[in-house]
Amino acid sequence: MSETENQGAISIAPYRYALAVEYNGSAYRGWQKQSDDDVPSLQSEVERALSRVANHPVQVVCAGRTDAGVHATWQIIHFDSCVERDLRAWVLGTNTYLPDDISIQWARSVTHEFHARFSARARRYRYLIYSSPVKPALLSRGVTWTHKSFDLESMQRAAESLVGEHDFTSYRAVGCQAKSPVRTIQSLEVTQRGRLIMIDVRANAFLHHMVRNIAGVLMKIGSGEASIGWAREVLEARDRRMGGVTAPPFGLYFVDVDYPDLFDLPVSPLGPYFLSGAD
Amino acid sequence: MSETENQGAISIAPYRYALAVEYNGSAYRGWQKQSDDDVPSLQSEVERALSRVANHPVQVVCAGRTDAGVHATWQIIHFDSCVERDLRAWVLGTNTYLPDDISIQWARSVTHEFHARFSARARRYRYLIYSSPVKPALLSRGVTWTHKSFDLESMQRAAESLVGEHDFTSYRAVGCQAKSPVRTIQSLEVTQRGRLIMIDVRANAFLHHMVRNIAGVLMKIGSGEASIGWAREVLEARDRRMGGVTAPPFGLYFVDVDYPDLFDLPVSPLGPYFLSGAD
Repeated sequence: MSETENQGAISIAPYRYALAVEYNGSAYRGWQKQSDDDVPSLQSEVERALSRVANHPVQVVCAGRTDAGVHATWQIIHFDSCVERDLRAWVLGTNTYLPDDISIQWARSVTHEFHARFSARARRYRYLIYSSPVKPALLSRGVTWTHKSFDLESMQRAAESLVGEHDFTSYRAVGCQAKSPVRTIQSLEVTQRGRLIMIDVRANAFLHHMVRNIAGVLMKIGSGEASIGWAREVLEARDRRMGGVTAPPFGLYFVDVDYPDLFDLPVSPLGPYFLSGAD
Repeated sequence: MSETENQGAISIAPYRYALAVEYNGSAYRGWQKQSDDDVPSLQSEVERALSRVANHPVQVVCAGRTDAGVHATWQIIHFDSCVERDLRAWVLGTNTYLPDDISIQWARSVTHEFHARFSARARRYRYLIYSSPVKPALLSRGVTWTHKSFDLESMQRAAESLVGEHDFTSYRAVGCQAKSPVRTIQSLEVTQRGRLIMIDVRANAFLHHMVRNIAGVLMKIGSGEASIGWAREVLEARDRRMGGVTAPPFGLYFVDVDYPDLFDLPVSPLGPYFLSGAD
């Protein structure tokens, strides 16, 4: 068996598969495989499990690399394989080799035109804030806890001022590698779900830390520490130093990727599943 | 400072407090403190933290001892203290000494007539079943996963046949220490919440493994492996061997305790909080 080359459009491995991965990122240093094999990454766990099912080394490409501590309900990946396997084997077989906090949700056979990253037209994230004077013991690394309380209407109005195509320099990490800071936010909504506040954001693509920097700004506005207009002022400054703190990773979930219809992939139920009615 | 004696009505410590504790039981061998101090228990963690705030050894009494792996959103405890502290100190101070998976939700000053176990008139549990061909990666130890799918109407009809005062010998663990096997189930409901099925049960008190044995029977009925009438047949047999398997602890949450109004304790929001609308 030879190793597969799957970054380009041409591959020596004849079969390409797309998969959705759900994971609790709490125990990992992020999606991306590190040069040091001892650093736990989601990518290495998934590649190791898929390689056992494929019976040859597998390399995967993901729709969006998530940072340390960030979760996903619908991370899309693709990989090439020399062998054709039943889709059930790629799902259930791989899951038996994965730890409890990673799960393949489905697998589809796709043409080599499909690329998990380059075919994606939009991504969607949800950020869960647990607002209570007292810390949560359940899902403690699955939400961002703050003792502050929020005015949702202020947050929503501020959110609206970020929708559209903009230069998001002020909302990206200083070390962000993307060539252009211009992104298009298609929707950005703030809603209450019981004790949780959910920020739901959809864009063509995201810069590094962009969701968490938006969450940080909206939280300051919601708590009354900044005015509604501040979100837009930060945007227009095009200076990361204006943007305040990056919100913690714990409450962040990668929940959807939009691909052209021709690939005929399943539709995301928009998790996480424990928010009832999410299905 | 002397140690407090808090099992009886008479105590040398003048101040009695009632607290609600939320916990993720995944990492613990159950509520109860073990003779071997190395065995992780919720009671020892809570006592250790309260003792630091009280500045003297504290012993607690709980409303219901939960088994290994079982969670709580509203476990009620009481303890006696030689010192009077602000209620905020008992909550926020204690929480700073507790691990991430345990959290004091509130504290109230109560008279010595209040007893977390003996004053309780009813308890309530919720059991969460994740029904999907594929395992969950999120909340993996916070739900009971099964690949089976269920007919909720059958489960609900079977559940109704267990409501009322009955001899629950068939639904209690062989080693259960309770003197009488008679308990009164006040309500037992099965509902769908997205991908989750929730069994919600309220009784004056519960026998050992009673909720998990009921869940095991209802799951067999819901999946079509047993008829609706089987729940009642098991009950009437008064023989544990008739009752099938005990469902796993992962999906079980202790969510409420009912005390007489005179103690004026907060009302449970009926968690877990991540089920939206639970608040």
